[in-house]
Amino acid sequence: MKRLGLAIILVALVAGLSAAEESGDFEPATTNVWGAEYPRIDKAGRVEVRIKAPDATKVRLNFWSGPKVDMQKQPDGFWTITTEPLAPGLHYYTLSIDGVEMSDPGSHAFFGGGKYASAVEVPEAGADYYEIRAVPHGQVREVWYDSKVTGAWRHALVYLPPGYEEQTKARYPVLYLQHGGGENETGWIRQGRANFILDNLIADGTCKPMIVVMAYGYARRAGYTPPDLTGKPFGSPEMMKAMQDMAAAFEDDVTQALIPFVDATYRTIADRDHRAMAGLSMGGMQTFQITLNHLDLFSYIGGFSGAGGLRMIGNQKPDWKAAHNGVFADPAAFAKKVRLLWVGVGTDEPERMREGIRGFHAALTEAGIQHVYWESPGTDHEWQTWRRDLKDFAPRLFQ
Amino acid sequence: MKRLGLAIILVALVAGLSAAEESGDFEPATTNVWGAEYPRIDKAGRVEVRIKAPDATKVRLNFWSGPKVDMQKQPDGFWTITTEPLAPGLHYYTLSIDGVEMSDPGSHAFFGGGKYASAVEVPEAGADYYEIRAVPHGQVREVWYDSKVTGAWRHALVYLPPGYEEQTKARYPVLYLQHGGGENETGWIRQGRANFILDNLIADGTCKPMIVVMAYGYARRAGYTPPDLTGKPFGSPEMMKAMQDMAAAFEDDVTQALIPFVDATYRTIADRDHRAMAGLSMGGMQTFQITLNHLDLFSYIGGFSGAGGLRMIGNQKPDWKAAHNGVFADPAAFAKKVRLLWVGVGTDEPERMREGIRGFHAALTEAGIQHVYWESPGTDHEWQTWRRDLKDFAPRLFQ
Repeated sequence: MKRLGLAIILVALVAGLSAAEESGDFEPATTNVWGAEYPRIDKAGRVEVRIKAPDATKVRLNFWSGPKVDMQKQPDGFWTITTEPLAPGLHYYTLSIDGVEMSDPGSHAFFGGGKYASAVEVPEAGADYYEIRAVPHGQVREVWYDSKVTGAWRHALVYLPPGYEEQTKARYPVLYLQHGGGENETGWIRQGRANFILDNLIADGTCKPMIVVMAYGYARRAGYTPPDLTGKPFGSPEMMKAMQDMAAAFEDDVTQALIPFVDATYRTIADRDHRAMAGLSMGGMQTFQITLNHLDLFSYIGGFSGAGGLRMIGNQKPDWKAAHNGVFADPAAFAKKVRLLWVGVGTDEPERMREGIRGFHAALTEAGIQHVYWESPGTDHEWQTWRRDLKDFAPRLFQ
Repeated sequence: MKRLGLAIILVALVAGLSAAEESGDFEPATTNVWGAEYPRIDKAGRVEVRIKAPDATKVRLNFWSGPKVDMQKQPDGFWTITTEPLAPGLHYYTLSIDGVEMSDPGSHAFFGGGKYASAVEVPEAGADYYEIRAVPHGQVREVWYDSKVTGAWRHALVYLPPGYEEQTKARYPVLYLQHGGGENETGWIRQGRANFILDNLIADGTCKPMIVVMAYGYARRAGYTPPDLTGKPFGSPEMMKAMQDMAAAFEDDVTQALIPFVDATYRTIADRDHRAMAGLSMGGMQTFQITLNHLDLFSYIGGFSGAGGLRMIGNQKPDWKAAHNGVFADPAAFAKKVRLLWVGVGTDEPERMREGIRGFHAALTEAGIQHVYWESPGTDHEWQTWRRDLKDFAPRLFQ
């Protein structure tokens, strides 16, 4: 068994055991797999990437919200690059090897863009609100619920706050928290660290203990046959119809399958005063559609770099009477019904996104609709914006 | 917000919405990401793989325990291949593009080989014991425990059986279940489907409800500086030392940090009669080292395609008096102390592995040491073997 055992574990072990060398103050990213020396990061936030591709003729590093640069081939067959300093936070990236996009074997894989991508975590000086700290920790649970809407088992993650198991009589409010386009139900934990953010806020006494439910935002109604969009132009009627079908299927899944499952499975306070929904980007749009169509179920609403619904009309002043069943038509009644309407965006997000959210905020203000608006300084359409959003949003819930 | 919203979700949506076309009886693998048409599988277990690489000169498909074949370039810039029928089960694979190994963007990523790899699930006719069924489901929980041994927070997955939350007075036995070399604590759930296997066995009444703890099998003692093994030959004294250091660190982490955490966190029956450990491959070797060094803590032992410890002497008859503190020296005393010693291997595993386990079984038999030996017909050093092992092993526990 001896040599055999060696053979079995060598593959992973050599990396893990040879992780000694250093250079300057560059250190392996905390998002690396065990023993991977690259990518690595220095104090200034510069990222050094390295990949072996001796036969490649062109290798590029593509940060999805950051530098997209050619890498340099070295005599040893490795390609390397060191970026300019990046903003703090988790940055998705992929490598392009002779035109083939791939993830970096040195990085943990994160589900984004509809596939598994790589990412580097650039630390933010002084920010430990999303780090694991020596405080009581909630648990993240994987659950599978049988959705009559989609006709399939659906996987969700559920955060139970510290003390949930000890206080066997206590009941808790629930935040439904959605990922963005191309991501899945794991995003808020793996990329967003929502569990650590809640642990820390609760430990600091600034946030009510709550249950957080993270579902998969893509859904197809049972028996639904997706249209073939091949060759259909961007934004074609067929695509719009397909998107509306999916949005409606997810809305029904949340209200008819997920919420009943959660209320039956956990000690929730199952009323609108103790139920919130928020989401980022696509999840923000889903949140507005679902909550504003079901104000009997929700009283707290958050849009992180995503708001309104498919029926919002860009950043022109919307027709509030028409939009969202006219819930905005009477600001006083709305303020009475909705305890929190929260909208935020990062100041470094793409202009269309930033101005879209600002325009929505402006329209709400002009219409006299009570809401909280917040901008994350210096961050893009990325997870650091949404971590900060959650940190500002969660303490405002259920007070 | 409208065009913006489209832009945000298009990336993942188009795939999800255009998933119409079919060919013959090939269907997308259940292990694919949302909407990915490839890889796909037919009834015979043939796998069709497709990747776009118009500028590549050589593309290979590498199944880690299966065919390693060149793919053919098509006029449209895609490379394709259809394999021979594969054995049932989950098969790891990677693609090699001009010598660069990458995972397939169409597949979910599974942590194996020290990185994220692709895999296809080839269904086994008539086998639904690892499928999700309409039975009560346990929950898989993510926990982080503060290990004084490693000086770091460690992540583990814990399966709580159905009814755990309702029967608030009930206490449960615990199975510690380890992954193999190059894998991590997620393997038994993502690849092995241990939660569904336990759900189904418990629902069928053939298995006692139990807690299953899945920890990360790699560990470094706090303050440990890994040696630089660069240039050191395979099996060098330095490597052996480093492996023994890691094995000892993990042994202490399990016995001094993990077990106390689990017994403090969950309603366990915290004695040796209600504690089992099993593992696959490297995890099997760890299991033997840890349990046989701590028979005060464990009374059930399972080795799935991995047994003995670093001190076992190949498939020659071992010196039982020397091995494992001599616990095997008195078969009668051993049988009295250890309620189950279980060893298994797949008939199609690599010869050295198969013969190593068979030799261990033969040695145990010759020494008169009571044990259960089982072979998985037609399966390799892969997850289908270990799913079957768990299905045979778990019902024998805590009876």
